[in-house]
Amino acid sequence: MVTGTENLFGEFMGTMVLLVFGCGVCANMTLTKSKGQGGGWICIGFGWAFAVTLGVFTATTLGAPQGDLNPAVTLAKMMAGIYTFNQFVMTSIVQILGGIVGAAIVWLAYLPHWAETEDPAAKLGVFSTGPAIRNPAANFLCEAIATFFLMFVIWMIFSKPVGTLVPGYGPYIVGILILALGLSLGGPTGYAMNPARDLGPRIAHAILPIAGKGSSDWGYAWIPVVAPLCGALVAYLVASSCGVLG
Amino acid sequence: MVTGTENLFGEFMGTMVLLVFGCGVCANMTLTKSKGQGGGWICIGFGWAFAVTLGVFTATTLGAPQGDLNPAVTLAKMMAGIYTFNQFVMTSIVQILGGIVGAAIVWLAYLPHWAETEDPAAKLGVFSTGPAIRNPAANFLCEAIATFFLMFVIWMIFSKPVGTLVPGYGPYIVGILILALGLSLGGPTGYAMNPARDLGPRIAHAILPIAGKGSSDWGYAWIPVVAPLCGALVAYLVASSCGVLG
Amino acid sequence: MVTGTENLFGEFMGTMVLLVFGCGVCANMTLTKSKGQGGGWICIGFGWAFAVTLGVFTATTLGAPQGDLNPAVTLAKMMAGIYTFNQFVMTSIVQILGGIVGAAIVWLAYLPHWAETEDPAAKLGVFSTGPAIRNPAANFLCEAIATFFLMFVIWMIFSKPVGTLVPGYGPYIVGILILALGLSLGGPTGYAMNPARDLGPRIAHAILPIAGKGSSDWGYAWIPVVAPLCGALVAYLVASSCGVLG
Amino acid sequence: MVTGTENLFGEFMGTMVLLVFGCGVCANMTLTKSKGQGGGWICIGFGWAFAVTLGVFTATTLGAPQGDLNPAVTLAKMMAGIYTFNQFVMTSIVQILGGIVGAAIVWLAYLPHWAETEDPAAKLGVFSTGPAIRNPAANFLCEAIATFFLMFVIWMIFSKPVGTLVPGYGPYIVGILILALGLSLGGPTGYAMNPARDLGPRIAHAILPIAGKGSSDWGYAWIPVVAPLCGALVAYLVASSCGVLG
Repeated sequence: MVTGTENLFGEFMGTMVLLVFGCGVCANMTLTKSKGQGGGWICIGFGWAFAVTLGVFTATTLGAPQGDLNPAVTLAKMMAGIYTFNQFVMTSIVQILGGIVGAAIVWLAYLPHWAETEDPAAKLGVFSTGPAIRNPAANFLCEAIATFFLMFVIWMIFSKPVGTLVPGYGPYIVGILILALGLSLGGPTGYAMNPARDLGPRIAHAILPIAGKGSSDWGYAWIPVVAPLCGALVAYLVASSCGVLG
Repeated sequence: MVTGTENLFGEFMGTMVLLVFGCGVCANMTLTKSKGQGGGWICIGFGWAFAVTLGVFTATTLGAPQGDLNPAVTLAKMMAGIYTFNQFVMTSIVQILGGIVGAAIVWLAYLPHWAETEDPAAKLGVFSTGPAIRNPAANFLCEAIATFFLMFVIWMIFSKPVGTLVPGYGPYIVGILILALGLSLGGPTGYAMNPARDLGPRIAHAILPIAGKGSSDWGYAWIPVVAPLCGALVAYLVASSCGVLG
Repeated sequence: MVTGTENLFGEFMGTMVLLVFGCGVCANMTLTKSKGQGGGWICIGFGWAFAVTLGVFTATTLGAPQGDLNPAVTLAKMMAGIYTFNQFVMTSIVQILGGIVGAAIVWLAYLPHWAETEDPAAKLGVFSTGPAIRNPAANFLCEAIATFFLMFVIWMIFSKPVGTLVPGYGPYIVGILILALGLSLGGPTGYAMNPARDLGPRIAHAILPIAGKGSSDWGYAWIPVVAPLCGALVAYLVASSCGVLG
Repeated sequence: MVTGTENLFGEFMGTMVLLVFGCGVCANMTLTKSKGQGGGWICIGFGWAFAVTLGVFTATTLGAPQGDLNPAVTLAKMMAGIYTFNQFVMTSIVQILGGIVGAAIVWLAYLPHWAETEDPAAKLGVFSTGPAIRNPAANFLCEAIATFFLMFVIWMIFSKPVGTLVPGYGPYIVGILILALGLSLGGPTGYAMNPARDLGPRIAHAILPIAGKGSSDWGYAWIPVVAPLCGALVAYLVASSCGVLG
């Protein structure tokens, strides 16, 4: 059980760290003249993986032992009785705020590279996900499937009898899960799996004076918000019926 | 000793997770317009590695502490007295069923990409393995050698005196073994090493209405079933004569 | 608290090891005819990551349990009361000396490759960092941001309640942090984040008789010295105000 | 202290496993039509890394708790009083024999690929190392430097106060050391660092009926034997004078 609002600062800071590293690796791989440009999917995979690991360390240390960094995960845990509805809403809001701040820091870190990069879609891609083939139903399905496995496997890792991992290993193995998800299910939609990860940076993209930016593609924005929430809910239902919760 | 049939659900779910991540990384690397297309062998290696790690976590948590996900491994453990013959047969069947379901989920996650991909062989390659140079004797030998080292090194990792690993580290180090096997012995045949990993998805390929699919290459299908079983049996004989079993 | 000067030998040796592996991976990726040439950013990322891991092991074993290898980290810890000012100065000096020696060893290991490599800037790039787009204010900002997250996340990892990691895991997880920093924030300036890492090898570059070397780019040299110190100071202020120090 | 000859079987088997995975990754990356062809230095790095990890698990479990797999390491430990001279000689011989058998297994696993590969030097490169720029003095120096850091850092990892790693983590972190060595110091000579790793497979190359093979390059063969032994001896002298032995 999470009590009161003591987790909010940790979730804000942890999600900020998540997006600094997450949007950062997208910037490094795609912006013109960046030293990592063209580093490929393996860099994207490891970058997001350990973005989550480091974000979870941050959240945990700053008073948010759940370390969700993700409204979809928080929703599933609300269903499992760990959060109240009010806590879910407040936690989701600070996660999204953390995502905005994290993305803004990446904009600053790569400041001279935005004007050098011609393609506005590449710039948006540093902030938010987009579909490889635009097909709302299929994109929704893919995001929901990926988030289902995110949430379901988290429970598989942290439930008994595998049980209590040694200190500091939990955030690492969750990072490995994110690596696996990116390598395996990230192809069609860029594996948002997290409303805060996608909506926060998209808001940052809309607000910030990014040189030569284009549309923030709000028409797609609902999919990486709603589909992860649905996927996580289904994961709750399956995990619950498997008897591994509580 | 495994008792009764309580392991079957975990083995089914674990093998399903294995194939979601395993077939998923093949889809991401090879299907047209997928964001990871061309990510290369290092992605394949890590994708399958942690597919196994996450599958083992799943199986273990859901009542299958052996977490084999692989009839060849189960066969070798039957020889070592952990399973009865009936348990081996039932476990193998649910592993193959899990493989079918896992592959079908990948088909759904990548739904718009099948029609975009022209080469039918590339589509089959998402599901099942095939030889780089078609030569049944050599392909059989390669799969048997790879599976021998899979099974033999598993016993080397989990036997005394290295002994009891800390909780959650066992599935990770087995993933590292799978990474090493893919990097080192995966070149000639794509390292099936597991009848459920190959036959399950091949059945899914034959059944599913995949856009523009070609042959399921049933002429090759026996090799990644029979050769792994043989390799695992030899591993049992060698490990047994080394005195590390029981 | 660090007592006396007993940490100096360990910091010297640890930073030497850091630069052997760190400059080494840059040499391997960029020098003409080197077997790893063109291996890409993922190799750079892992090379520097485990350079830090192995340097920390070395420093720790040789009497420097803090294992900083970095004057910016030592400065932040001085603010937190772990070092005196004199200890900070002396520790920084031996770290820079270690950096000189480590870089010189890489020069020896790759001895025939310097004459084969035509581009003097590529040769300097083995030793020291340089900006992708030369813009002192932006380059300073990027280095300060990266070092902020280096120092801040170190405290997030090693503060309670994540607390006491199992022996040998701390150096590994710090290596993972360095991997994440390189993948995510290394694009604009090459992620020095450490005065000893940049100034030490730059001095080595200036001193050593490297075949066909060019300028040591002293005009840029102050940025990877001053910006990391500033970033680490800000990390101290933020971590302190978060209440995680002591 | 190692007693009698009880370590010989484990060292033989462990070195065999080392070379199956080590030569295997070279075969996968370089032989024509192999599925991993062109996978690059990151695959080579991880392949050899976990080849060592898995070889150490094997050796340890089969009665060789030192798990050296390398005459240079065994020599340094003889200097430190862990082996007698006779034990060093016998252990080295079984390590080389293990290397021959491991390389022969890779030849079998990749059987149809030898005739498809035109370049005889590429075929030799699967078995043994060769210099990027042929220069005996520089090649010797590079191999000695790399082996110095292999041996010196092993002692840094396993000496107090880092001390007793959790079970199964030691072989993993040694694999990470091998990854770092390959990424950083592997460019000029291919990082043999181990007489058994180079001489064993070179003997296998000379003996086996490999389709279209060329010279075994015996003129170079002494360097990856003698230089590692020298580098390890220097590591012993330095570690000993640092007071970390015993």
